[in-house]
Amino acid sequence: PYIQQLQMDIEQIEKGGFEHFMLKEIYEQPRSIRDTLRGRLLPEQGLINMRGIDEYKEKFLNANRIIIVGCGTSWHAGLVGEYMIEDLVRIPVEVEYASEFRYRNPLINEKDVVIAISQSGETADTLAAVKLAKSMGATIFGICNVVGSSIARETHAGAYTHAGPEIGVASTKAFTAQITVLALMALKLGYMKGTLSESRYMRLLIELNSIPEKVEETLKCDPITRYLAEIYKDSNNALYLGRGYNFPVALEGALKLKEISYIHAEGYPAAEMKHGPIALIDENMPVIVIAPKSDQYDKIFSNVQEVKARKGKILAIVNHDDEDIASIADHIIEVPETENIFSPIINTIPLQLLSYHIALLRGCNVDQPRNLAKSVTVE
Amino acid sequence: PYIQQLQMDIEQIEKGGFEHFMLKEIYEQPRSIRDTLRGRLLPEQGLINMRGIDEYKEKFLNANRIIIVGCGTSWHAGLVGEYMIEDLVRIPVEVEYASEFRYRNPLINEKDVVIAISQSGETADTLAAVKLAKSMGATIFGICNVVGSSIARETHAGAYTHAGPEIGVASTKAFTAQITVLALMALKLGYMKGTLSESRYMRLLIELNSIPEKVEETLKCDPITRYLAEIYKDSNNALYLGRGYNFPVALEGALKLKEISYIHAEGYPAAEMKHGPIALIDENMPVIVIAPKSDQYDKIFSNVQEVKARKGKILAIVNHDDEDIASIADHIIEVPETENIFSPIINTIPLQLLSYHIALLRGCNVDQPRNLAKSVTVE
Repeated sequence: PYIQQLQMDIEQIEKGGFEHFMLKEIYEQPRSIRDTLRGRLLPEQGLINMRGIDEYKEKFLNANRIIIVGCGTSWHAGLVGEYMIEDLVRIPVEVEYASEFRYRNPLINEKDVVIAISQSGETADTLAAVKLAKSMGATIFGICNVVGSSIARETHAGAYTHAGPEIGVASTKAFTAQITVLALMALKLGYMKGTLSESRYMRLLIELNSIPEKVEETLKCDPITRYLAEIYKDSNNALYLGRGYNFPVALEGALKLKEISYIHAEGYPAAEMKHGPIALIDENMPVIVIAPKSDQYDKIFSNVQEVKARKGKILAIVNHDDEDIASIADHIIEVPETENIFSPIINTIPLQLLSYHIALLRGCNVDQPRNLAKSVTVE
Repeated sequence: PYIQQLQMDIEQIEKGGFEHFMLKEIYEQPRSIRDTLRGRLLPEQGLINMRGIDEYKEKFLNANRIIIVGCGTSWHAGLVGEYMIEDLVRIPVEVEYASEFRYRNPLINEKDVVIAISQSGETADTLAAVKLAKSMGATIFGICNVVGSSIARETHAGAYTHAGPEIGVASTKAFTAQITVLALMALKLGYMKGTLSESRYMRLLIELNSIPEKVEETLKCDPITRYLAEIYKDSNNALYLGRGYNFPVALEGALKLKEISYIHAEGYPAAEMKHGPIALIDENMPVIVIAPKSDQYDKIFSNVQEVKARKGKILAIVNHDDEDIASIADHIIEVPETENIFSPIINTIPLQLLSYHIALLRGCNVDQPRNLAKSVTVE
C-alpha cells in the first residue's frame, strides 16, 4: 500500500494552521475571554461568581488600600485594574513594579489587600513580593494563568485567567484575560460595596458579556494592520499615546513592538507629551494614538493636533464613526465602541496585530524574540 | 577719548560666561541647593525650619495618604519624594501625573494631603489638579520655584525651591531643588512622627548639609561627560536603568536626553528589563546604569551583567571606589558617595552634563529645544 507521509510536525499541529503561536493566541482571544467569563458572569441573574472574592469579602470591602504587583505586561494589566477599582469600588489602589516593591521596605499591614498578577505564576520578583506582603499580614489575591503555579499556591485566594497555555513569549491573550478578571472583580466589589449603582452594574454586566463578540469583530482589522505594517515597518522609533483607561494600553502596545520587532517604542500618557517627549517628534516619528470615544476624547484630539503640527505621522485607533481625529490622522484603525472601562481589551487587539506584522516583515522571530524568556524565574 | 564698545549683549551677561543658560544652571546647583537649604536646615541644632509644615503638622502626621501631583521633571521629583516619604515617614504615597489625576474622579478627602510640584507654578494640568483636590477637602502643599505663581497662591501652604530663575527649557537646578525640599520635608516629618530615629535623623541632617559641596565635587565630571558625549552622540536610542531611589533618576536622565538632543531615550526600573526592553539590546544600544553603593548594588550588578551578555554598551554612574560594575562597564563616571536617599541629587548631575554635551555636538538648540515651552500653561 502507498503510504503518504504527513508533512507536519507536532508544533505545526499545535499552531492550528497559524504561522506562529502569537498569531494563534491573538485569534484565540474571543474564546479565552469567554472562557475567563464562563461560570462567573451571569448577566441574566445580575450575578458575578468568584469564590475567592466571596471568601475574602470583608477584607476587600474594608481594605485601606489595594496594592497590585506585577512585572511587564502583568504590570500594565495592573494599571488598568487600578483605574477600574478606583472608579467602581472607590478604594485607593497603588500599582507597583514587583521588583521595586519588594526592596523598598513597603508599607503593608493587615488592612491591605495585595493583588499579584503573573501569567506563569512563577515570576521571581512577583513571588518574592507576595511572600513579603504575606509575612506582613496582608491578604494576597492571585491572578495567574497557570493552575497550581507557585504564586497561585502562595496566595490566600485568587481567580485564574482561563486563557489556556500561552506559548508566544510576547503575552497577548493572557493580558486581555487578566483585564477581564480585574473587570469582574471591580464590578463585583463595586456592587457589593454599593459604590456602583444597580443600573450601571447591570449595564456593565451586559456589555462585558458582549466583549468576546466585539473582540471577534475587532480581529477583522487584521488586513489593515498588515497593510499598515508595510508602511511603518522601517521606523526606528515609535510613541504610543493614551489617556485614562487607555494610557496602560499605550504602554502595552509599545512593549509588544519592543519585544518582537526590536523597534524602540515608548508609551506615554498623552498630556505628558508637552513636558518633553514632543521634542522627539518630526516627520520620521510614528505616533500611535489610542482614542476611542470617551469623556477625554476632546483632550486627546488636541494632543493629536499638537503632534500633527510637528509633522509626526499619526496612526489612530478610533471608533467606527469617528470624525475629528480620523480627519487629521495619517491612518486609522477602526474598532467597535464599548464602555470606556472595557475599551483596553478592544484597543489592545489592533496593537498586538500591528506588532506581529511589523516583526514578521522585519524577519524577526516572533514567537521567541531575542534575549527574552517566557517566564522570568530569576530576579 | 577712545571708546571701546563692549561686545556683549544682555543675554551674554546673564549667562555669566557660560555658553548656554542650561550649562550655567547646571553649574549653579551647589548654590541653588544651598539656597534651598539656607535658614531651613540647622544641623547643629538638629532642626529643620519649615513654617508650612509646622502650620499643617497635624494634617501631615495624620494623613491617610499623601498624593503627589506633577508633570514631566516635577513628576520625577515626586517619585523620588515617594521613596523618601514612605521610607522616613511611613505614610503611603501615591504619585500621579496631574493630567491623569484630574480626569479620573480621584479618591480624595480631608484626610489626604496633596503635594503639587511645579517649577513655574503655572503648569495647567497641575493647577487644575490642585483646584480639584482642594474642592474635595484635601490639604494642598505646593513646591514651586516662582514666588507668587498661580499654584503657590492656590495652595494652603508650601515651600519654595530657591533655585533662582530657570531659563533653560530643560529643567536642571529646579529638579535638584525640588528633591532638596522633599528631603527636608521627609526628614522633618519623619522625626516629628517618630518613624525616624534621632541618630539617623542627625546623621541625615549632617549629610544633607554636605550635599552642596558634593554636588560641587560631582561637577568635576564635566570633562569626562564631554569626552563620553563624543562617543555616544550618534546613538539613535538609549536606555537608562536604576533601582529604588535611582529609578526616577533614570527616568529624568532619559527625559533630558530626549528633550535637548532628540535621541529617543527611555528610563526603566532595572529589573523590568527582562520583561521586554532587553529585546532592544544589541551592540548599538547604549545603556546608562545608575549604580551607586546601596543595598541593591548586587541586584543592579546582575542586571548590568545581563546587558553585557547581550553586547549592550554600558555607561555606569558609580561611586569612586567601585569595582564590580566598573570592571564590566564600557565607561564609568565616578561620583561621590552619599546616603542612598540623597543620591538622586548627586547622580542627576552627570546625566544633565552628558545630555548637554551630546545635544551640543549634535548641533541642537540646547536652551530652546524644538516643540517645547518652558512652562506648559495649556492642557
